[in-house]
Amino acid sequence: MQKILFTNDISAAVTSLVADMCPSTVHIVTDRNVNEKVLPSLSLPYPAIVTEPGDVSKNLDTLPGIWSGLIAGGATRRSVVINIGGGVVTDMGGFAAATFKRGVRFINVPTTLLSAVDAAVGGKTGINFCGLKNEIGAFAPADAVVVSTVLFSTLPKEELLSGYAEMLKHGLLSSEKEYRELLGFDILNADLDRLLPLLEKSVMVKERIVTEDPREKGIRRALNLGHTVGHAFESLAMEHSSPVPHGYAVAWGILAEMVISHMSERFPSDELYRYASYLKEHGYGSPDISCGDYPRLLELMRHDKKNDTSDHINFTLLSSPGKPLIDRSATEQVITESLDIFRDLMG
Amino acid sequence: MQKILFTNDISAAVTSLVADMCPSTVHIVTDRNVNEKVLPSLSLPYPAIVTEPGDVSKNLDTLPGIWSGLIAGGATRRSVVINIGGGVVTDMGGFAAATFKRGVRFINVPTTLLSAVDAAVGGKTGINFCGLKNEIGAFAPADAVVVSTVLFSTLPKEELLSGYAEMLKHGLLSSEKEYRELLGFDILNADLDRLLPLLEKSVMVKERIVTEDPREKGIRRALNLGHTVGHAFESLAMEHSSPVPHGYAVAWGILAEMVISHMSERFPSDELYRYASYLKEHGYGSPDISCGDYPRLLELMRHDKKNDTSDHINFTLLSSPGKPLIDRSATEQVITESLDIFRDLMG
Repeated sequence: MQKILFTNDISAAVTSLVADMCPSTVHIVTDRNVNEKVLPSLSLPYPAIVTEPGDVSKNLDTLPGIWSGLIAGGATRRSVVINIGGGVVTDMGGFAAATFKRGVRFINVPTTLLSAVDAAVGGKTGINFCGLKNEIGAFAPADAVVVSTVLFSTLPKEELLSGYAEMLKHGLLSSEKEYRELLGFDILNADLDRLLPLLEKSVMVKERIVTEDPREKGIRRALNLGHTVGHAFESLAMEHSSPVPHGYAVAWGILAEMVISHMSERFPSDELYRYASYLKEHGYGSPDISCGDYPRLLELMRHDKKNDTSDHINFTLLSSPGKPLIDRSATEQVITESLDIFRDLMG
Repeated sequence: MQKILFTNDISAAVTSLVADMCPSTVHIVTDRNVNEKVLPSLSLPYPAIVTEPGDVSKNLDTLPGIWSGLIAGGATRRSVVINIGGGVVTDMGGFAAATFKRGVRFINVPTTLLSAVDAAVGGKTGINFCGLKNEIGAFAPADAVVVSTVLFSTLPKEELLSGYAEMLKHGLLSSEKEYRELLGFDILNADLDRLLPLLEKSVMVKERIVTEDPREKGIRRALNLGHTVGHAFESLAMEHSSPVPHGYAVAWGILAEMVISHMSERFPSDELYRYASYLKEHGYGSPDISCGDYPRLLELMRHDKKNDTSDHINFTLLSSPGKPLIDRSATEQVITESLDIFRDLMG
């Protein structure tokens, strides 16, 4: 099981973790933004390997620079890598560490809400390849994750909303109580001290699921809630050259899959309205789609990595908040009707 | 544990393994030589992704071609990759499979003695990086390995000797009886039907060690016997632009480490002569070194990947045939004297 520390003192947590690991050398992997804006305040005494920020650098061209930095810094099999950044840094730095000398230990320090709740925990590392997200990667859990909300005060609204979509998802997978508590919290005017315990609960939902099923043979697929339709929204937006934040696409995808759940699994209709209201009141916007986009959306869903074969579409659905159902499928007709209802709800 | 089949009918074995795995698609990874000379005789009904032969292609430039071939062939997480070739193909194809969609299943079909006894079994995959052997990789065992001697009749003498060096090593790690049996077998005039059961014993030595310690935390380091000095010989030859076969370097390295074992661990001196005779009688040649090369050889040993820290040199030694001792070290003086004695023995 991964060691996960929830703290308001990142430097102390990292220093203590490193001391316990007795590494031969320690190396930070981060991006240029974090290196300029965050690292000075942490004053960690380790050299940093700095990548370019953004998803465009999460690819095979960036990895050699990380590996070369480790070699130049004298890294051995007993070295430790500390990935400090958002999901791009923790995914890519984790993959670089997992493959350097066939794997060295690493610590993740997520600097965004989204990476704290999603990417930094759970052992999925990877890079994009040929335009496909996380097509190349490895299952390799961080030895430790340091989760803090102290860095979130300067995050843009968009990033907070994106991360919160994943927290809502974890609430929906966990229990009605936890989900209601999240619907009652205003992430746009967040008290960061109140956010930390909510985040802790949320991260532990994922951690429990991942511990039970690290390689996504079963229950871990529950974490794909919202992602089958969400990824299709995200890819379509990319194709239309107007990309949307991943977390917004997931927030919308959750609603679309709630509608499918309503049609196939009796998910209560009042929950649809309640969830849609949260999205509308907090400025998640809505995807720019018309019914002319449905065939392409269906095609994108069919080619999702989560499908074992390309001839049916796999969903995680819900019978009610807190009650996920994995490995469900839906007919094209149900999906199409759900997209109509989804657009009405968001309209 | 890996499934390992020893057989004289490769096609039947592969066909039966694939049937049991219920894959969505099947893809062969091989190199141009094997594709031309071996694949036609196997008549396997799967498309082949063909790489350039040789260690020079075992790098980050070749991987995208393999991954793209899998994508173009419609591979999913339930696909199976069959690596057919020598160590370069099984190491690199294994790494490509281990990282494609965070890991798909793969079967290794070694076509050389060296890859059968060494690379195809044990879960070490990888590529070279920055001139460093297997610097980037993953621990990922093949789901199955098909071992056969039927392809070995056309192998050059050099390849047979290289593979046999690893078999001698396994004998030394396993038991005096097994080691003596190997010294009594003439690999240069080998009856392939007699070789198969010897090979089976040899592969199972490695398999037992690897099962006990997949990630090389302890006893697996025994497999490094001969490799600390052997890699240094190999790297030095490369630096002198007169590369030597890996297996020859290992064969020499075993002798050099036997001498160190003699000096530090009372390894019997008559065994040194007996082993040196096998090498001389079977044409392993000897490394082109003088005492002027010792400082560089020591430096290469210090920087070996097997060292946890770069300030001491890790060896696997022997107290007698069949009795390995892991995590030993030797002073520079002992190593230097051993190299002198080694040169006398080979002279």
